[in-house]
Amino acid sequence: MFTLLGSDPHSLARRGRLVTPHGTIETPVFMPVGTQGSVKTVHPAELKALEAQIILGNTYHLAVRPGMEVMREAGGLHKFANWDGPILTDSGGFQVFSLGKIRKIKEDGVHFQNHVDGSPMVLGPESAMEIQATLGSDIAMLFDECPPHPCTFEYASTSLDLTLRWAKRCREWIDKNQPQTNGQPQLHFGIVQGSSFAELRARSAKELVAMGFDGYAVGGVSVGEPEPEMMAAVENSIPFLPHDKPRYAMGLGTPPQMLEMIARGIDMFDCVLPTRLARHSTLFTKNGTVNIKNQTFARDFGPLDEDTHPLCHGFTRAYVRHLIKAGEILGLRLISLHNLHFYLSLMSRARKALEEGYFNEFRKEFTANYKTHTSTPDSTSTPTPSPS
Amino acid sequence: MFTLLGSDPHSLARRGRLVTPHGTIETPVFMPVGTQGSVKTVHPAELKALEAQIILGNTYHLAVRPGMEVMREAGGLHKFANWDGPILTDSGGFQVFSLGKIRKIKEDGVHFQNHVDGSPMVLGPESAMEIQATLGSDIAMLFDECPPHPCTFEYASTSLDLTLRWAKRCREWIDKNQPQTNGQPQLHFGIVQGSSFAELRARSAKELVAMGFDGYAVGGVSVGEPEPEMMAAVENSIPFLPHDKPRYAMGLGTPPQMLEMIARGIDMFDCVLPTRLARHSTLFTKNGTVNIKNQTFARDFGPLDEDTHPLCHGFTRAYVRHLIKAGEILGLRLISLHNLHFYLSLMSRARKALEEGYFNEFRKEFTANYKTHTSTPDSTSTPTPSPS
Repeated sequence: MFTLLGSDPHSLARRGRLVTPHGTIETPVFMPVGTQGSVKTVHPAELKALEAQIILGNTYHLAVRPGMEVMREAGGLHKFANWDGPILTDSGGFQVFSLGKIRKIKEDGVHFQNHVDGSPMVLGPESAMEIQATLGSDIAMLFDECPPHPCTFEYASTSLDLTLRWAKRCREWIDKNQPQTNGQPQLHFGIVQGSSFAELRARSAKELVAMGFDGYAVGGVSVGEPEPEMMAAVENSIPFLPHDKPRYAMGLGTPPQMLEMIARGIDMFDCVLPTRLARHSTLFTKNGTVNIKNQTFARDFGPLDEDTHPLCHGFTRAYVRHLIKAGEILGLRLISLHNLHFYLSLMSRARKALEEGYFNEFRKEFTANYKTHTSTPDSTSTPTPSPS
Repeated sequence: MFTLLGSDPHSLARRGRLVTPHGTIETPVFMPVGTQGSVKTVHPAELKALEAQIILGNTYHLAVRPGMEVMREAGGLHKFANWDGPILTDSGGFQVFSLGKIRKIKEDGVHFQNHVDGSPMVLGPESAMEIQATLGSDIAMLFDECPPHPCTFEYASTSLDLTLRWAKRCREWIDKNQPQTNGQPQLHFGIVQGSSFAELRARSAKELVAMGFDGYAVGGVSVGEPEPEMMAAVENSIPFLPHDKPRYAMGLGTPPQMLEMIARGIDMFDCVLPTRLARHSTLFTKNGTVNIKNQTFARDFGPLDEDTHPLCHGFTRAYVRHLIKAGEILGLRLISLHNLHFYLSLMSRARKALEEGYFNEFRKEFTANYKTHTSTPDSTSTPTPSPS
């Protein structure tokens, strides 16, 4: 399913190809997030134009609303959302912990009240896998507990034990039910946990690999920890993951973080930053982020950035600023498209750099430029990313 | 500039062609409203895909924000809004009366505080024409007073006198300044006022025609008056307008109202209903309007309507309902596109019916179907249209 096409001589970076039931994905890849069955503000035809290879859907959100009866009758998430490309669904675990109310973690799963109408729900390893099978995603994630940051070694260890018991039950459910999508087997990724403890990360990775999955994610990152801990979590997991399977860092990150993660052996990313920062009127540029509401841009008749997507061609910073100030949705749309293009084209440039052997230079140059903020006095810095 | 291509033997309906500096418009035509320099939620490329022939911009809104310095530096509204087709701008008069605060009507114009930051502004016949020349619209509207509904004969008559004095001053400004756009003369339309008084409508039309403009609008309609009065305002104006000039009913209307107006000799329409009702989750269908939030649609996996635009193909009512319930902007986008398509395709069907001689049947059949509301118990009825 996953083919390693090449690797960087100066780092752990890899160039790969992952075949899924709904299509082939070239890695490293960025996956736009469609939490509620829609990448915020974006039409599926625009996602194709942006050359998005795969999008995310959120099990928790979709199970709460519209609910699984609708999803089942719709024939799965691809048909429902009018997207025929690959989809990855998370297990819902993360959202249960971040959005669910009065939650209780039991051996069978998590009991909670959903954030929309307060209805009591239970999500556990079997139900999370069953829901994802119904959604028909190409890649389903195992159900795990994502420990908070910071947490004690004892909490992290006990939590990891539970996550591993759940992983075993997911494995059994998959083996028994053999879920398919588009007539081919659904792929399943295990999630390495263990918080900031190296020995727990190692144990987590080894035990998951022993169970055997189609890919492995590093979870429990981007939960408020400092960046060195985030990097360490990946560094402590990667050595125990097989070379012939894709690796996914969940919920990350800023553009330089993604390049650093690629250098540490990560192949796949998802992050809400491109669309979330758009809602804060913030554009990604090669020099860092800028807030389009800034007075500086009132008469800036240049493009959103030197490199922007054709869908944003012909629109000036002054116009987009006007749209945002006037509350016009087209402004939000254009910034969302631009930011997604920024992330997606960063990945395609990284792939090309890997193919042509200059990834190390590319990463250094990009990061050096990106850290240099624009001279705009009140341009926003990038906030810490967090999952949607 | 305007060519009459044919007329209906059973009514006053006409099929025409209006050449403007930025392109040719086939009439009858519906003009999507881009109040603040953007047709709400819609990308200019989507307007092209919808086959919109001309869009509206609002002088008052654009003069308040981003302001005329920005518009001047941008090189006009076409460049600013990234739209290279024809644009009609209103004079700002209507918005001054509906949105301006502490307004005073004087001989030189209207003194008011704008609704965005309360700054004092004056808009009069010369400044309204000058602003529209700077915006570079293809069709500029004269500056008028739009009397409220209801109003006395005396008020309407005195108001009309002022509007006609302002029209004369507009005429003089145009003759002196000869404004151009895209290298060709800007077109100017007079606005027939007179409230619900037939003799004032007649006087208004005759005096405007004597001054000579490129087209004539019926104004002071869709201001809260009952539908028969709206029709009467048009019926009392049309006989005094020349056959060889286009006629525009301002701020109208529902789909059946537009067909009735076409039958009374109107060629051009603008209305915020398609995008405004989209914000109220309401879809236009051949049977009338329906609210997509209705529980009936939760598992309706059919299209938005039998006839919808290709940009809406593949999206079910159940999905769009989910998007709206979940607050996802794509839902608002899809309904806006569908509704604009409904209005624009109604006009293209009317043009075809006029060309092929069955307009009377088309109008009767459409209106009969449209009045029959769907069986959906709580489908919304169409609210009275009002300008943005």
